[in-house]
Amino acid sequence: MAVQTAAPTTPSVDLGPAAGLSCRECGERFPLGPVFACEHCFGPLEVAYDLPAGDPEELRKRIEAGPANIWRYAPLLPVPADVADKPNLNPGWTPLVKADNLARELGVTGGLYVKDDSGNPTHSFKDRVVAQALEAARAFGFTTLSCSSTGNLAGAVGAAAARAGFRSCVFIPHDLEQGKVVMAAVYGGDLVGIEGTYDDVNRFCSELIGDPLGEGWGFVNVNLRPYYAEGSKTLAYEICEQLGWRLPDQLVVPIASGSQLTKIDKGLQELIRLGLVEDRPYRIFGAQAQGCSPVSAAFKAGHDVVRPQKPNTIAKSLAIGNPADGPYVLDIARRTGGAVEDVDDEQIVDAIKLLARTEGVFAETAGGVTVGVTRKLIENGLLDPSLTTVVLNTGDGLKTLDAVAPTTGPTATIRPSLDAFRDAGLAH
Amino acid sequence: MAVQTAAPTTPSVDLGPAAGLSCRECGERFPLGPVFACEHCFGPLEVAYDLPAGDPEELRKRIEAGPANIWRYAPLLPVPADVADKPNLNPGWTPLVKADNLARELGVTGGLYVKDDSGNPTHSFKDRVVAQALEAARAFGFTTLSCSSTGNLAGAVGAAAARAGFRSCVFIPHDLEQGKVVMAAVYGGDLVGIEGTYDDVNRFCSELIGDPLGEGWGFVNVNLRPYYAEGSKTLAYEICEQLGWRLPDQLVVPIASGSQLTKIDKGLQELIRLGLVEDRPYRIFGAQAQGCSPVSAAFKAGHDVVRPQKPNTIAKSLAIGNPADGPYVLDIARRTGGAVEDVDDEQIVDAIKLLARTEGVFAETAGGVTVGVTRKLIENGLLDPSLTTVVLNTGDGLKTLDAVAPTTGPTATIRPSLDAFRDAGLAH
Repeated sequence: MAVQTAAPTTPSVDLGPAAGLSCRECGERFPLGPVFACEHCFGPLEVAYDLPAGDPEELRKRIEAGPANIWRYAPLLPVPADVADKPNLNPGWTPLVKADNLARELGVTGGLYVKDDSGNPTHSFKDRVVAQALEAARAFGFTTLSCSSTGNLAGAVGAAAARAGFRSCVFIPHDLEQGKVVMAAVYGGDLVGIEGTYDDVNRFCSELIGDPLGEGWGFVNVNLRPYYAEGSKTLAYEICEQLGWRLPDQLVVPIASGSQLTKIDKGLQELIRLGLVEDRPYRIFGAQAQGCSPVSAAFKAGHDVVRPQKPNTIAKSLAIGNPADGPYVLDIARRTGGAVEDVDDEQIVDAIKLLARTEGVFAETAGGVTVGVTRKLIENGLLDPSLTTVVLNTGDGLKTLDAVAPTTGPTATIRPSLDAFRDAGLAH
Repeated sequence: MAVQTAAPTTPSVDLGPAAGLSCRECGERFPLGPVFACEHCFGPLEVAYDLPAGDPEELRKRIEAGPANIWRYAPLLPVPADVADKPNLNPGWTPLVKADNLARELGVTGGLYVKDDSGNPTHSFKDRVVAQALEAARAFGFTTLSCSSTGNLAGAVGAAAARAGFRSCVFIPHDLEQGKVVMAAVYGGDLVGIEGTYDDVNRFCSELIGDPLGEGWGFVNVNLRPYYAEGSKTLAYEICEQLGWRLPDQLVVPIASGSQLTKIDKGLQELIRLGLVEDRPYRIFGAQAQGCSPVSAAFKAGHDVVRPQKPNTIAKSLAIGNPADGPYVLDIARRTGGAVEDVDDEQIVDAIKLLARTEGVFAETAGGVTVGVTRKLIENGLLDPSLTTVVLNTGDGLKTLDAVAPTTGPTATIRPSLDAFRDAGLAH
């Protein structure tokens, strides 16, 4: 197999209901393994399942009796049945916040929810996908977990590897801000600064994967990508279960590579097929930052392909200029009656503050993108405020303090006296 | 009542099983209200309950069927029965991490767990106590939630007030680091810098509480303190339920004011009295930073009273030089066969890194204190490694990055080439 990567022998792979890999483009099937591209058409591979048949009510009960993390959905994920007993970070089951204050500000009357993934162990949704990659790495006999990253992924990989007893080796651009370096390095794995840009880091990682030096290495979002990506399905599962086993009418999802949006759609389709939720129409909306909005631009132009952009936005966790799943996102947005929209940096900051002020949720810039886009979609009539709407916040404001710092400070500074307090006009 | 603070009329206060307040020193009872000190002896007041009588098995089932947050314990807390339906941050039900890797490093054979409260909405245990204060504020008709703070409490109050539709006004020293200011200000409440030290801020707040200017204001840890403090009981409840309704043999708890440790003991006693856990001996250990260790010093000297210290430690969230509950902590540590110990700043940093490296949990400096003290207690034979031990992490490493930054960085920095990677000796 041309695109098989170096991996130890894996005599019997138990990844639960995962039956194999299938090419998203040509449909060709492959056995489970650390492969990520079709050997015939080079299309992306994704996990194909033998999903549990039988009474949906029984499956719902089985899920509800499971742990308060993503492993409650083990029967629907590429993981062994006993995954909850293995050492891992156990992410997921994050709050679905009923955002009544935000709904009032935005004029949403049909029910507005924020799925707040800052509640994950390392405070971003990346814990979900890394947890899947880790189980695949275990199944394939890898001993090192690796990735290139400029932020959230580095912490998620470092922490998961530490808990699971894997070695980790994370590659970053050498000139990353110190705060981000600390967050990546504190888990004690190897952290390697690469003299070059983030593109150089990725190019180097691709070389390493194809070289004997990288033998036994699981790059979570390269040779383990088909498994990794499935982690985003759990967002769909949780949202529906938290709504009382019901599909939301509308979802607003951030777009980086587009994989998360694509897999949320896959997860919703699975719930329908299994009879876990009633089959009703839903709309998926994609959200980008204007400074990196190739999918939004293609959507608005009516194109099927995405023209790469050079990112320039404060929403760095979404700054992928050439999103691999862009065409699939366009397809899903159009098929479901959704849309793709973008907001500029100022609107992102405003939206972060709006969410914090109304709901007490301090979001990363990516959360500012989804909330800002939601507001814009309502204004231009593309999102129906009378329908149940779920907005994703995929990260934590503590990681992007710089975005709001210039415009966030004390209301007043006064001497420690009641007179000074009265004069400041704050005693209302 | 001399120490009653200005508050609106509260014709009927429904705080669930809370039956009144009682003085911890003289036992005198008072009706529920925004009072915090006994009018006879000036002792601290705490909530007295009419706890649910009846079959423990039924109560256990009722709790287990409740929400995955502190409100599952509403029957044991000073909150109305329908508290889960009101807008608040819904903290709690944070992970109890089975820390097998850390146990191996420390030589603990009886089972070691980390109660990781960085999983709360604003990433510290303060969300638990503020949630209680908020419900009391609602019951008493307050409209502004307030506090003085240099860190975690400011964010917890700002976020809770935002969600609940309260005004918030938080007082901070004017020269706080910008990162902390941003974390406190982002929720959109009033944030007031006071020209002076933290002591000046507190003195000013005391004046404000006694003045008509402060009418309608709930200071979470002053006039709402009896309710606020009860939030820490939920740590005890969760730990026991997560252990399968079983008392741990040993707990290691950080000491700031000492209130948390005191209330954890109260919570364990309640579980025993209600028959929810078997009555067995447990030991509570207190953990302080050497740079602010008045309780540890008193414990070691065999004193019953605590001599105040001037704090000088990186564990700023524990830096209370004159801890109000110090004498109660000494009493509990001695009564249960525990101890109070302290570690220096270097040991705190080492312990933060140890926990991150072994379990993928990035703790605040307070978590470094408890883990470091646990190691020290094992070394000096005071903590029995053959017994089930729970160590608290009450905050998030993202908030105290500065503590680990000087000693946490990349393993290597290399050119983007396989040769450079090979030469760096990382390809094992």
